[in-house]
Amino acid sequence: MKNAAGVELPEFIKGYGEVKPFAGAFAGYGQVRKVAVRLDSVQPGKTKLLESIDEAIEKVNLRDGMTISFPSHLRNGDYVINQVMEVIAAKGIRDLHLAATHIFPIHEPLVDYIKRGVVTGLSASYISPGAVAKAIMKGYLKNPAVLRSHGGRPRAIEGGELHIDVAFIGAPTADAYGNINGVQGKAACGTLSYGIADAEYADKVVVITDNLVPYPACPIEISQDYVDYVVTVDSIGDPSGIVSGTLSVTKDPVGLRIASLAAQFIDEAGYIKDGMSFQSGAGGTSLAVTAEVRKRMKEKKVVGSFAAGGVTGYIVDMMNEGLFRSVFDVQCFDLKAIASYRDNPKHQGMSGSLYGNPNTKGALVNNLDIMILGATEIDTDFNVNVITGSDGIIMGGSGGHNDTAAGSKLAIIVTNLIKGRLPVVKSKVTTVATPGETVDVLVTERGIAINPRRSDLIEKLKDSALPLVPIETLREMAERLTGVPKPIPFSDEIVAVVEYRDGSVIDVVKKPLD
Amino acid sequence: MKNAAGVELPEFIKGYGEVKPFAGAFAGYGQVRKVAVRLDSVQPGKTKLLESIDEAIEKVNLRDGMTISFPSHLRNGDYVINQVMEVIAAKGIRDLHLAATHIFPIHEPLVDYIKRGVVTGLSASYISPGAVAKAIMKGYLKNPAVLRSHGGRPRAIEGGELHIDVAFIGAPTADAYGNINGVQGKAACGTLSYGIADAEYADKVVVITDNLVPYPACPIEISQDYVDYVVTVDSIGDPSGIVSGTLSVTKDPVGLRIASLAAQFIDEAGYIKDGMSFQSGAGGTSLAVTAEVRKRMKEKKVVGSFAAGGVTGYIVDMMNEGLFRSVFDVQCFDLKAIASYRDNPKHQGMSGSLYGNPNTKGALVNNLDIMILGATEIDTDFNVNVITGSDGIIMGGSGGHNDTAAGSKLAIIVTNLIKGRLPVVKSKVTTVATPGETVDVLVTERGIAINPRRSDLIEKLKDSALPLVPIETLREMAERLTGVPKPIPFSDEIVAVVEYRDGSVIDVVKKPLD
Repeated sequence: MKNAAGVELPEFIKGYGEVKPFAGAFAGYGQVRKVAVRLDSVQPGKTKLLESIDEAIEKVNLRDGMTISFPSHLRNGDYVINQVMEVIAAKGIRDLHLAATHIFPIHEPLVDYIKRGVVTGLSASYISPGAVAKAIMKGYLKNPAVLRSHGGRPRAIEGGELHIDVAFIGAPTADAYGNINGVQGKAACGTLSYGIADAEYADKVVVITDNLVPYPACPIEISQDYVDYVVTVDSIGDPSGIVSGTLSVTKDPVGLRIASLAAQFIDEAGYIKDGMSFQSGAGGTSLAVTAEVRKRMKEKKVVGSFAAGGVTGYIVDMMNEGLFRSVFDVQCFDLKAIASYRDNPKHQGMSGSLYGNPNTKGALVNNLDIMILGATEIDTDFNVNVITGSDGIIMGGSGGHNDTAAGSKLAIIVTNLIKGRLPVVKSKVTTVATPGETVDVLVTERGIAINPRRSDLIEKLKDSALPLVPIETLREMAERLTGVPKPIPFSDEIVAVVEYRDGSVIDVVKKPLD
Repeated sequence: MKNAAGVELPEFIKGYGEVKPFAGAFAGYGQVRKVAVRLDSVQPGKTKLLESIDEAIEKVNLRDGMTISFPSHLRNGDYVINQVMEVIAAKGIRDLHLAATHIFPIHEPLVDYIKRGVVTGLSASYISPGAVAKAIMKGYLKNPAVLRSHGGRPRAIEGGELHIDVAFIGAPTADAYGNINGVQGKAACGTLSYGIADAEYADKVVVITDNLVPYPACPIEISQDYVDYVVTVDSIGDPSGIVSGTLSVTKDPVGLRIASLAAQFIDEAGYIKDGMSFQSGAGGTSLAVTAEVRKRMKEKKVVGSFAAGGVTGYIVDMMNEGLFRSVFDVQCFDLKAIASYRDNPKHQGMSGSLYGNPNTKGALVNNLDIMILGATEIDTDFNVNVITGSDGIIMGGSGGHNDTAAGSKLAIIVTNLIKGRLPVVKSKVTTVATPGETVDVLVTERGIAINPRRSDLIEKLKDSALPLVPIETLREMAERLTGVPKPIPFSDEIVAVVEYRDGSVIDVVKKPLD
């Protein structure tokens, strides 16, 4: 069958189950359900502090075939997955589904556990280029990996599709009864947003900390009523690993031109105005757009309502300059963001669910005006790939990409027309992460394409001096420079399933032919 | 059948259902369940702000027989119940269960709705002396009222026993998308703790505010993902109505003697020490105990971990003096508490569930060392009545009484031996709210009785100069002074069911014979 993004899908995928085909970005809204939760209530006098990870695994009665989760904001600095998995593997427990939020190069030890059948299932919102991605592509994982967005993951947890038997939550600070925060301690990472759904819905919740403080931890981000056990370790991670790429405004002239065009477009489209809300990625070009928007906000003396996202010091500065009244934060990206989240009540954390879960009474992305996004590929239907590289190998994930695109009033893709001698604009993307119907504008250094669905924008900018062109023209330009790349030869074996934020299948990743 | 508090109960109560008899204070712990939640997800672009309460009632499709809830911290200053009920009554909707947190004299208009069958069920954690209590006692309410503790109410909501069709949450501050807080606006009441379970579990949530602010409200105590609609009204209430009784240390010499004895007892029992946690009620004698404890903490240079409760400025002062590292707040009782909760991150709010719900992985009451409680009556089994007066008429409710008694290490009842010429210590209390097994000590002006279950305390204080006596002796002293009061003649008609915090029935209130 073909889904609404034009992707051919089987009706059933072994190791995943029945396929609910993507039926349109807003088809999933309506009456929904959060699942019931089982828990063992804790009576006065019981101690939660255990001696070791081993003891915790005994106490929660971890068994073959269970699902364990590892929500983390420490990204490539996370030590929790490796420490816990080492103990689990040593105990001979097998056939686990590992429900992560992020997989980074630091998690390379997983490859061995995957090969040995300790880990047979893996889901995440982001899988960076590296050994685990390669192992998945080689088909080592027994069941297809499942990629979900930052909003889709808590939706799946709360809706019962992703039932977690045991959540292991790394906590930069915890007390012995399970109150935790991310703003104190040597591994302080800021908000603990991603772990909230895990804490609320997992059968068992184990907090792992390297900073045990006297009761009560203060502030409390996840509270004791959701935590079964607390374990201390030497280190839960290295916060310098939070940042994997650049976090500064690009100096590349192409990137700067794209940023300048994007900001001009936003301005002409009428989005620089009091009460505006804004989010952008943390890449160099996205930050350059932010810098241009900042300049225009200052010129117009505009006060925005909020900035959101993965938050950098750059956004914090804008709030402190009075350009935004508040910040909503799902992931602190640097020390300045962490300090601001800790000290400034206007810098609020939000759960992954509040951020992007479509199955709520209104995620924050619904309130976004302007969203700046990147792309690995974009096709002439405006579908965007942020999952696989031009070689077809997994090198990312939606993160908040399809959540924010769906929610925001103006979702803008900024990208070079060509990357690594390959065209970014194509007839068809290798993997669809974000459906074209939720993408409004593509800005490249060679021109800007407005999605034809946005006739209001086309009308509004009809007299603009901006280089507005049909997206077909951009594809042609790109292909004229690079040639049409040869299609990647794939086998029929599905190694990963890409879920849209509503849980429907928007695409699959297949194993390349050798 | 007889329950574990020695109370004779029917197996079934008309209008309430099957009776689960109280089986001991800790019998309810074990594997428990939070119920599934239905909701209508809200897609981008939808507006939540409505014109009027009437429109909200139309939108949520309120129908005969439904359950509507009114969590409130404004107590006798709450205008929301009356405003909403007036509209509901005018629309001819009938047979509603009204799930309140508090009923105060201001809610007198309910009597008419009860008589007319608009309201046929009522549940609350506290029903103050007044017209509604009288109407219940007269049997005007079709179904028995249900009294639950502050922890029992969210337990019932989360467990599905108290299914709320529509929650109406008064919000001192709200934005148009449903983010709310209690710390700003003319009706600022501080924490919105009681409403959290309602927001999370009701099918529909309507926010009613008199202070609509630009998006986003900041801080956010209950977030937009839980709210369906927002309505503005002229006033949601008068915060000066929060305080119904005295909030200052008693000047009565008897009260001061009780306080002095209680503090001496706490000290000799070894509870004045670093890391101690403390809660007391806001009555004059309880505050006098707090004052004595404060003095002793200062003398010993002790730093406690936390104070909790309904919080007064007095407790805030103790935190600011360094006597407690933090405060947990479920109800701000005065302006100083509200300001402190707003401005000081060490003054943290807590949901009703975190406060006292036994069906969680550990309520805050589990962490309490010392709890100072009042009593209308206490019997020689240490069972406490805070529900009915000596005339058998409802004049209160558990509030957090049985939650904190069960959780705390040292639950102390402080009371005059005699009140209004009637003995407080009796052979049998009129209504059991808090089971004797969770009460450790009774302190009166004539002597202190330790619960025989606490052999450790008896041993520890065996050489004390304090006037330690068996509780029987206190009963005899009281009855010698007052005589044994004549039993109140009750009919067999059950007008209210008193649930223990775990949902079992600990007692019932019967209609007095005329």
